Amino acid sequence: MKKDLVEITRDVEKYLDKEIVVEGWVRNHRKQKEFGFIDFSDGTQFKTMQVVYDNKLDNFEDIQKIRVGSAVSIRGILIKSPKEGQLYELQATDIELVGDSPENYPIQPKRHTREFLREMAYLRPRTNLFQAVFRIRSLAAMAIHEYFQDNGYVYVHTPLITCADCEGSDQMFKITTLDFDHLEKDENGKVDMSKDLFGKKAYVTGSGQLHGEAFALAYKKIYTFGPTFRTENSNTKTHANEFWMIEPEIAFCDLNGLMDIEEEMLKYVVNYVLERAKDELQFLDSFVEKGLIEKLTKLVNSEFTRISHHDVIDILKKADVQWEFVPDYGEDIAKEHEKYITEYFNGPVFITDWPKDIKAWYMKTNSDGKTVAAVDLEVPGAGELMGGSQREDDYDKLINRAKEMDVDLETVDWFCNLRKYGGCYHSGFGMGFERLIIYLTGVENIRDVIPFPRTPGSCLY
Amino acid sequence: MKKDLVEITRDVEKYLDKEIVVEGWVRNHRKQKEFGFIDFSDGTQFKTMQVVYDNKLDNFEDIQKIRVGSAVSIRGILIKSPKEGQLYELQATDIELVGDSPENYPIQPKRHTREFLREMAYLRPRTNLFQAVFRIRSLAAMAIHEYFQDNGYVYVHTPLITCADCEGSDQMFKITTLDFDHLEKDENGKVDMSKDLFGKKAYVTGSGQLHGEAFALAYKKIYTFGPTFRTENSNTKTHANEFWMIEPEIAFCDLNGLMDIEEEMLKYVVNYVLERAKDELQFLDSFVEKGLIEKLTKLVNSEFTRISHHDVIDILKKADVQWEFVPDYGEDIAKEHEKYITEYFNGPVFITDWPKDIKAWYMKTNSDGKTVAAVDLEVPGAGELMGGSQREDDYDKLINRAKEMDVDLETVDWFCNLRKYGGCYHSGFGMGFERLIIYLTGVENIRDVIPFPRTPGSCLY
Repeated sequence: MKKDLVEITRDVEKYLDKEIVVEGWVRNHRKQKEFGFIDFSDGTQFKTMQVVYDNKLDNFEDIQKIRVGSAVSIRGILIKSPKEGQLYELQATDIELVGDSPENYPIQPKRHTREFLREMAYLRPRTNLFQAVFRIRSLAAMAIHEYFQDNGYVYVHTPLITCADCEGSDQMFKITTLDFDHLEKDENGKVDMSKDLFGKKAYVTGSGQLHGEAFALAYKKIYTFGPTFRTENSNTKTHANEFWMIEPEIAFCDLNGLMDIEEEMLKYVVNYVLERAKDELQFLDSFVEKGLIEKLTKLVNSEFTRISHHDVIDILKKADVQWEFVPDYGEDIAKEHEKYITEYFNGPVFITDWPKDIKAWYMKTNSDGKTVAAVDLEVPGAGELMGGSQREDDYDKLINRAKEMDVDLETVDWFCNLRKYGGCYHSGFGMGFERLIIYLTGVENIRDVIPFPRTPGSCLY
Repeated sequence: MKKDLVEITRDVEKYLDKEIVVEGWVRNHRKQKEFGFIDFSDGTQFKTMQVVYDNKLDNFEDIQKIRVGSAVSIRGILIKSPKEGQLYELQATDIELVGDSPENYPIQPKRHTREFLREMAYLRPRTNLFQAVFRIRSLAAMAIHEYFQDNGYVYVHTPLITCADCEGSDQMFKITTLDFDHLEKDENGKVDMSKDLFGKKAYVTGSGQLHGEAFALAYKKIYTFGPTFRTENSNTKTHANEFWMIEPEIAFCDLNGLMDIEEEMLKYVVNYVLERAKDELQFLDSFVEKGLIEKLTKLVNSEFTRISHHDVIDILKKADVQWEFVPDYGEDIAKEHEKYITEYFNGPVFITDWPKDIKAWYMKTNSDGKTVAAVDLEVPGAGELMGGSQREDDYDKLINRAKEMDVDLETVDWFCNLRKYGGCYHSGFGMGFERLIIYLTGVENIRDVIPFPRTPGSCLY
């Protein structure tokens, strides 16, 4: 690395009127007879820096041949930019080509369709759109870690490989070291899984919640943040087979306490991104979702409504709307209902106390015997952003519920035992990280917020 | 949650001489005729707090029946502790049992073997040892995120599911949605993988490096931090089939620059843990690795040596030692050599410029044509903690090397193309997170630094 190498974001101001060296890539190159302009990016900030050079440079002719996408090393004097919207400009005293780029370089300074760029996933972070999206993804991840760590949570790496199929093994990928073409069968004609690495069937999991609970009952407050897998064979804008989840779990915390945490965390993360990704959000606001910054700012300053599922159905039934799906006290709510209810309250809405039969087996049954202490957070423009619940802390009730819902108790006996060994009221929620990024960026398709998305039939790179 | 609920770590000082409520677990309970002492932990700090109660409490007899492991809610006055080594003590005015614990609760206040506790992975974070280890794990993870984010790196979630078998598919788990017992075969008698979710064979990966490079060539500095998988069927203290890795990649960075980053990052992380886990490290220093704190403090203040593999072999050959493995210029170095060389230099040692045939295909070949610009960091008491290299940035050389080493070029053509589209000198390294935690805690077995370890034949919980 050159000793005087400078990154264009970091403390660049102190180099004003001094000679510096920058290394990075040519985003655009406008050539004129006696001089030229390079839109230069070293990747360390969203905005490019303009580099100006003229024919006093020895290799002026070679410089003019430098194509878009090339890597360059530039020495020059940093000056205040005369161009509006740009702070600095570099007056080049030396420009060297580091790595060439061909005439047919796929990422040209023009609009490409997102479909085209998806096929170019390894190059698309070089475009404005994806440069913005993936920096925001990184910032949002850090915001989440900061929020939880600053508040005393312990980060737990729950396992991805599991032999428990409590979520329903049909929704989980099987994982194996066996050779598909030469599987040994046992006496019953079934594949002999005892020959596999773990000596039995193994899966990669879709949730770290059960393991998280074990740690919450030791540390009080924990969170997970890691990849999860679903086999869902569904090609929609919101489904991917690999995505990241955050699953906090808090002991001695009831449903109201949980909502306090969800609201505080979300505001923290949105505010963090608002403060640190100004250029990126400005770009997205202009070209992807008009009003994005206003939407995010409003969320940070809003009060979240708390209302029961029953009362939501009341409102939906009274509404003068021709529903595609008729709202029902015993049923889930549809996208059209989510939209209506966040508009009705003009802000985020916690919907609590859901019919037990449409929710998970480990959620705490309320005293009415019909509903569970679950909560979904509905956010304007994002739909359901988080789902959580108080957990059933009564051992016998939990076991009964598991039996009613056909859970394989053998694989989760340890989880149920947590209720016997100093159990307590506790709650947790899950947030799909991509859903958050979709909300933060206005980019609608999950394929465009994951660096290398995996969806049915598509596993490129 | 109770309104006046207080966590025993957080700002507890401001409640001195006031009445507070705490909720947590009984770690130990010593009963006397007219009073009793509870070692109380709410999980938010390593140290327990002593709770004192006497027979003036209405339910004194019930309180005396509370067993180890039970969850309790305690109201009391916080006072300065008369006991040495403890800051505070709670004089209980009310103690309620929240969740009982049975007589045969597995985690009693005595020494349990680590083997026993491994079988109790869902309860072991309640012991001093694992409470310390997993809080340090959480802190170290945060330190890593902080170091990279503060230095302008972008955190990239590289995919775990991959269809490229560039690492050698025999070392990767296959992942599938097919039913093992009813696999459809094609005309050649092979399993028809086109029926699988991605339409072809898929694996879970052991590295995010290749994908990380694509992002480094857009953002200059990136890091990954996520789980990785290896199928290695090896039952040792240092192998697990699922573990976490950190893989930073930096454009416009040569091998010397990379070593600067590795050294700075490691010191940052160790220092972060030294500052924030004083009680935990004190415990580990007393009961697990004598001199642990001194070892870590020494590392932070040491200068790391930089020496070539060739010169290391020279030193080993000259050493008056009867080696089990004879050192050789063309070979890897053994554990005994690592140990000798870090003792020789009395500190961490970067070993550079390794024989190319024992290193990966994408590493930059040096001008001698025999060695590559690779670097391993050897740390006293940890062995090889990080491995990195400058990457081959010459397209033709990379392709030749891939062919020589039998890499399936079809699956990595995009990766090779990065050299054509504005390629530049760049470098990166990988650090196994568990190896770091072993170093930081003195706990020797990888099974004891992973919350729920997965090793051959063992996939519990």
